[in-house]
Amino acid sequence: MKIPEGFLLGGVSCGIKDKGLDLGLILCKEGALAVGYFTKNVNPSYSVLVSKRHINNVIKAVIVNSGNANCFTHTQGLKDTLKICDVLSKYLGIKRNNILIASTGIIGKRLPFEKIVRSIPYLVKNLKKEPNDFAKSILTTDTFTKVVSIQIKGKKKFNILGIAKGAGMISPSLATMLAFILTDAKLDKNTLNRIASEAVEESFDSISVDGCMSTNDSVFFLSYLKGKNITTVEEKNRFAYALKEVCKKLAKMIVKDAEGATKFVELVIRGASSRQEAKKAVRAISNSLLFKCAVFGKMKNWGRIVSSLGEVGIKVKEDKVKIKSTSFKKKNIRITIDLGKGEAYWKGWFSDITPEYVKINAGYS
Amino acid sequence: MKIPEGFLLGGVSCGIKDKGLDLGLILCKEGALAVGYFTKNVNPSYSVLVSKRHINNVIKAVIVNSGNANCFTHTQGLKDTLKICDVLSKYLGIKRNNILIASTGIIGKRLPFEKIVRSIPYLVKNLKKEPNDFAKSILTTDTFTKVVSIQIKGKKKFNILGIAKGAGMISPSLATMLAFILTDAKLDKNTLNRIASEAVEESFDSISVDGCMSTNDSVFFLSYLKGKNITTVEEKNRFAYALKEVCKKLAKMIVKDAEGATKFVELVIRGASSRQEAKKAVRAISNSLLFKCAVFGKMKNWGRIVSSLGEVGIKVKEDKVKIKSTSFKKKNIRITIDLGKGEAYWKGWFSDITPEYVKINAGYS
Repeated sequence: MKIPEGFLLGGVSCGIKDKGLDLGLILCKEGALAVGYFTKNVNPSYSVLVSKRHINNVIKAVIVNSGNANCFTHTQGLKDTLKICDVLSKYLGIKRNNILIASTGIIGKRLPFEKIVRSIPYLVKNLKKEPNDFAKSILTTDTFTKVVSIQIKGKKKFNILGIAKGAGMISPSLATMLAFILTDAKLDKNTLNRIASEAVEESFDSISVDGCMSTNDSVFFLSYLKGKNITTVEEKNRFAYALKEVCKKLAKMIVKDAEGATKFVELVIRGASSRQEAKKAVRAISNSLLFKCAVFGKMKNWGRIVSSLGEVGIKVKEDKVKIKSTSFKKKNIRITIDLGKGEAYWKGWFSDITPEYVKINAGYS
Repeated sequence: MKIPEGFLLGGVSCGIKDKGLDLGLILCKEGALAVGYFTKNVNPSYSVLVSKRHINNVIKAVIVNSGNANCFTHTQGLKDTLKICDVLSKYLGIKRNNILIASTGIIGKRLPFEKIVRSIPYLVKNLKKEPNDFAKSILTTDTFTKVVSIQIKGKKKFNILGIAKGAGMISPSLATMLAFILTDAKLDKNTLNRIASEAVEESFDSISVDGCMSTNDSVFFLSYLKGKNITTVEEKNRFAYALKEVCKKLAKMIVKDAEGATKFVELVIRGASSRQEAKKAVRAISNSLLFKCAVFGKMKNWGRIVSSLGEVGIKVKEDKVKIKSTSFKKKNIRITIDLGKGEAYWKGWFSDITPEYVKINAGYS
């Protein structure tokens, strides 16, 4: 696995979680251009709040903790967050506003910032050109790490590395998911913005585990400022395609790791009257608790599809709509729905909801 | 139990379901003024479609089947529905458009209209001044019948009888629920409309089992045309209060019978900046799969409340919002949330989501 030039990664156990790594760091000492996507939840984590403030600066470090969402933690939460950034910035000799921060875990409990601060020297000492410790340190109920890397070959070689976490509270419009996409391709801000937005829309924004919107979703794209310039249109297109692939692969890994899930469904909507309608249809079906239960039960209950489309205002005609699918007995299912109304298309991925999902979320605290 | 004057009820087994009663009839030979509330799902049952057409006529009969939703059944579904009304109207010597129809059950399977038509003579023969057979005939996954009656005492006595079904696909904005509220109080259309709207808003429109909107929700209010006139303001107020009580009791019974549920939660939102915000808060929390799982797990996970409020755009301040509740270990729970923003108030009821709920809905076909 080729790590993009300019980046080091690490992860340690600082004691927020009972066991396992729970504090991660990405270092880009010479700076990266950053683009960020955040939860639309209006009661976000303080980590989201601070990262939003910093995202337009040159980014040199990203610190991430799991086991605590740093959300609904009163004004103390903001102070703790800034203090962590302060300590880290002094230790690294950078500015506080060169830092992004992300958190995931339980909401409403104060972030044990002393544990974090105390572990910073050890965290920095253990940085490597290797993503596994970082990938482990950001997990919560996830059962596997989510790492994807692509090398774009040609005259110049560009590397993209994507690392994500997420297994529950996953809904279109992002989810309790964090993703960090690093590249040594150097792009201007507008181009990175445009390419990253498209990639997020077709990946992290098109998946559902349980339809619950998190307070902490953050997706960061970091492009190394001293990386190789992307200059030609061909390079730009190949980069955009590769970035989309990385994001889609990570998004699908999140759905495959969905809490308690037994099924992975790819849902294709065709024949919609607009792209917006196609996306809306993907969301409605992906989030329908009843249809997700039917998938768990291996039942092709198309009635629940029609009902969930009607719930969001998508009228369908029985003699126009066509629903096809592969067997519901297999783990991987593909459902194609032609709404018979127009030409527009969208694709998404979701999991079933199972008794195990309920048990996991009845016990997580 | 006092049945309102002018009405007869009955229920028989016509063979749609494997066992139990599945076809019900309410007869009001001399006519009733009707007000109806229907699902907002844009792919509704043909029964909803036909009842919407007829609701402004004098209503003399209401026919209801369980076991089949009569939805997504192609144009044949409409023909079948009209044919049932035709046969019933001839048999009773009334007009087709004097009839309301409601259905509940699986979506997408043709209504076995021959079974229904064949059973009409037997159904009419078995009409009684007694609600139990009717109440049984409209059930699907319900585990008990839902019947409430109130007598308003005074110089004149007015009777209200309410019968409902519902156990799953229950969401604010109605649900897979049917309710029939009969009274021998005679009201003018505007008054009945106003009183019934308020009652529906504070009852059937404020409950959630799974947040899924049905294709078949129908609530009918029938006021006997030859009943006793409601004349004084006091009579009107007492009637409005009693009607609301009947609707609330039925709505709570639906939540208590929620598929697989172990908890019944009364949720009170105070201190909202508007009534609309308070209602929105009730809906967001009542429909949050994650919070419902927490309730099942007896966990006071307030973080999931804050998150679900934020998801629908309700910003709360940690030092202003106050959340109180009774023990989560008991079956009946009351949660009061003061948003600390204003004076507005709303109340709703919901159930937990359990592994059993998933199993029921993975197997129902």
